[in-house]
Amino acid sequence: MTTDTSPTVPEEHHGEVERLRAHVCALHTELTRWNLVTWTSGNVSARVPGADLMVIKPSGVSYEDLSPEDMVVCDLDGRVVEGRHKPSSDTAAHAHVYRARPDVGGVAHTHSPYATAWAARGEAIPCAITAMADEFGGDIPVGPFALIGGDDIGRGVVATLDGHRSPAVLMRGHGVFTVGANARAAVKAAVMCEDVAHTIHIARQGGPLHRLPQEHIDALHDRYQNVYGQ
Amino acid sequence: MTTDTSPTVPEEHHGEVERLRAHVCALHTELTRWNLVTWTSGNVSARVPGADLMVIKPSGVSYEDLSPEDMVVCDLDGRVVEGRHKPSSDTAAHAHVYRARPDVGGVAHTHSPYATAWAARGEAIPCAITAMADEFGGDIPVGPFALIGGDDIGRGVVATLDGHRSPAVLMRGHGVFTVGANARAAVKAAVMCEDVAHTIHIARQGGPLHRLPQEHIDALHDRYQNVYGQ
Amino acid sequence: MTTDTSPTVPEEHHGEVERLRAHVCALHTELTRWNLVTWTSGNVSARVPGADLMVIKPSGVSYEDLSPEDMVVCDLDGRVVEGRHKPSSDTAAHAHVYRARPDVGGVAHTHSPYATAWAARGEAIPCAITAMADEFGGDIPVGPFALIGGDDIGRGVVATLDGHRSPAVLMRGHGVFTVGANARAAVKAAVMCEDVAHTIHIARQGGPLHRLPQEHIDALHDRYQNVYGQ
Amino acid sequence: MTTDTSPTVPEEHHGEVERLRAHVCALHTELTRWNLVTWTSGNVSARVPGADLMVIKPSGVSYEDLSPEDMVVCDLDGRVVEGRHKPSSDTAAHAHVYRARPDVGGVAHTHSPYATAWAARGEAIPCAITAMADEFGGDIPVGPFALIGGDDIGRGVVATLDGHRSPAVLMRGHGVFTVGANARAAVKAAVMCEDVAHTIHIARQGGPLHRLPQEHIDALHDRYQNVYGQ
Repeated sequence: MTTDTSPTVPEEHHGEVERLRAHVCALHTELTRWNLVTWTSGNVSARVPGADLMVIKPSGVSYEDLSPEDMVVCDLDGRVVEGRHKPSSDTAAHAHVYRARPDVGGVAHTHSPYATAWAARGEAIPCAITAMADEFGGDIPVGPFALIGGDDIGRGVVATLDGHRSPAVLMRGHGVFTVGANARAAVKAAVMCEDVAHTIHIARQGGPLHRLPQEHIDALHDRYQNVYGQ
Repeated sequence: MTTDTSPTVPEEHHGEVERLRAHVCALHTELTRWNLVTWTSGNVSARVPGADLMVIKPSGVSYEDLSPEDMVVCDLDGRVVEGRHKPSSDTAAHAHVYRARPDVGGVAHTHSPYATAWAARGEAIPCAITAMADEFGGDIPVGPFALIGGDDIGRGVVATLDGHRSPAVLMRGHGVFTVGANARAAVKAAVMCEDVAHTIHIARQGGPLHRLPQEHIDALHDRYQNVYGQ
Repeated sequence: MTTDTSPTVPEEHHGEVERLRAHVCALHTELTRWNLVTWTSGNVSARVPGADLMVIKPSGVSYEDLSPEDMVVCDLDGRVVEGRHKPSSDTAAHAHVYRARPDVGGVAHTHSPYATAWAARGEAIPCAITAMADEFGGDIPVGPFALIGGDDIGRGVVATLDGHRSPAVLMRGHGVFTVGANARAAVKAAVMCEDVAHTIHIARQGGPLHRLPQEHIDALHDRYQNVYGQ
Repeated sequence: MTTDTSPTVPEEHHGEVERLRAHVCALHTELTRWNLVTWTSGNVSARVPGADLMVIKPSGVSYEDLSPEDMVVCDLDGRVVEGRHKPSSDTAAHAHVYRARPDVGGVAHTHSPYATAWAARGEAIPCAITAMADEFGGDIPVGPFALIGGDDIGRGVVATLDGHRSPAVLMRGHGVFTVGANARAAVKAAVMCEDVAHTIHIARQGGPLHRLPQEHIDALHDRYQNVYGQ
């Protein structure tokens, strides 16, 4: 619920907010489709372009019950601006990322099992296959352990991604946070992160593994980011 | 079928029993959705509030064939009070838990593969990720091996959970029992138990793993139980 | 197609054959539902009660294309009696089992991955969890390597199961054959075989594993075979 | 879009191209059904019989959005002849295979996790189960690491498959390429490649594994290629 002291959604953003409620809601079906989430864990948000606002999943609502109207609009301090639900318990982390990274338009968070296994050990995923070079441009790095609720997770995400091409970070003992130019890109990074976490885990069970040479990683990443797709 | 010497469902509970038949039946679809059960294994029950009764799955009926009318109403000694089927072969265990734990409103049981693998070795799952601290508040403990049919399983579940925050116990050489304030909470615990059993198994395959510091586990568990959700 | 020299389905069995065509066809959806088969691999057959006939899957037809009319009726020497398709390439093995084991009413065969992994190593699955004692009454044994097409596979299945309570055998370097009083029981055994092959594999990856004491296995198996279900 | 300097689809091939657009589009659903692809990765193509043309997936389009009209017709130098999208970024590799191997009518490419894990280590999959002998006639070989975009991948695929019965090659640090007499056969090989990569990986985790004797591999492969199916 909007509280008296909260800002409200300015009228010029009403249409965009409505569109993003539907878009962010729909993107959550990608988390279940790709088996990244269990029960109510995981969440996606999108920045409202041109406003200090974001649209995010409500806390603890089942995936099959999510509707666009359930999405919560928050300001970039994490306060609810519009919505009938409490926002995700990770709202402060998302908000911090948007404040610190104006280039980021979407954030996703999961406890997907293979990526979280690397996070539990605090071990970066080595860039040993071309699909990793394509999407992540190198290893997927590990961020610090941080308790939920305040700015610590968001700070850890931003600090760890600084200087990395990877849009994904493995938060130690916790799970995955990803960023993107928009929410769909952040969700894609979460999907690909679990995929490569899975493949590299299996690969290493069978014997030692070598990272790709840096020049190949650079060439693959450049091509994928600039040539691939429509 | 109700036998002559069995108690019957008192009239004031008819409405609640009907509601719980539908609810318990529907919760079984969560067991299949999250891949916790194979063929006809696994079961869920709910206590009938204010009565010494519970509603439980019939024995050996396929998940896709379950309807609310198939659910069986038993007293808390495990005797059938109402129902056209034999109740789950785990009925005695559920009944014991309800007798011993007035705070428990729901019980679930599965042989989900990763959790059962820890149970087969008789090894507790160490609390090494925040999702485990959230839901289980520490390690998931191991209970004794016990044969099915009498009170041994129920006694083992109750004795093992005593003094633990975990709503889940790994019964040695057998599988998972979970409890909750209601049946949905017990099912959620079964779902999350398999999820963390999976993630921690994978994590440890890649190298040694450290349990989270107790103070962090305490803070995470307190927040999740009291702040998370709507 | 029926050839001139083949026997035909006697008229008194027409109704039962029609019923079994639908039943065997439907049971193949259990193979895909439980992820036991890939592309066109795997097959199920049922004995026609009171006749020296069986109903079996056609060879190399996709699961989503199977209809009751596609099922093939063969005699117990594996010759086609009725059907517009060639029968499964494992027909000789099924036929041998029916000839040698009058108590068997159904046979299933899969290359399900975990069970086939034990078969590839030629290692029996040790009975370390109650679900295995329930269904298999002990270890799941390993049969000899045998080439497809003649009687060798069927002979290996029958010889290996002799003296075992297990309805499943791991044929070395190949996959799983299961038998049952009827086709549904054989399919159930194939489903449970993969389930326990999976769980015991995971369990052993985490450390040594102990088989259940024989007296417990005996008690569990007796109860499950005689008390469980409706 | 057809460019001015590109060849166009000759009128006598219009019907076949239209049929192949639908067929190739539909085959992509097999990649998702068998969990071989993640997000937009993976692709299938078919040669247009009697023409120096192929039909291939567009680059970076989601699987659930693919329609027959989205497929792209290219010549065997990889230039777009007809289509509203850019073709797959692997088009040059497919085109090279068609130029070098007149017997090949279809090509598939995936990053399926188990097969890619073997590729990441650069290790051939040993032929230790009958399903592998059937489909691959021996080990699945490893090809060289090659950067995407030019002829290197296609050359590596062709050179590695030369002298092998296997229709699949594990491209080092990358993923799987398969060939077939038609596109469906290439897709089947990709599905079976992941299946055996999975099973053999699991098998070897539990202990040493022995390849089947060559004479058995030969007999199995001969039978499967010449007797199996309708």
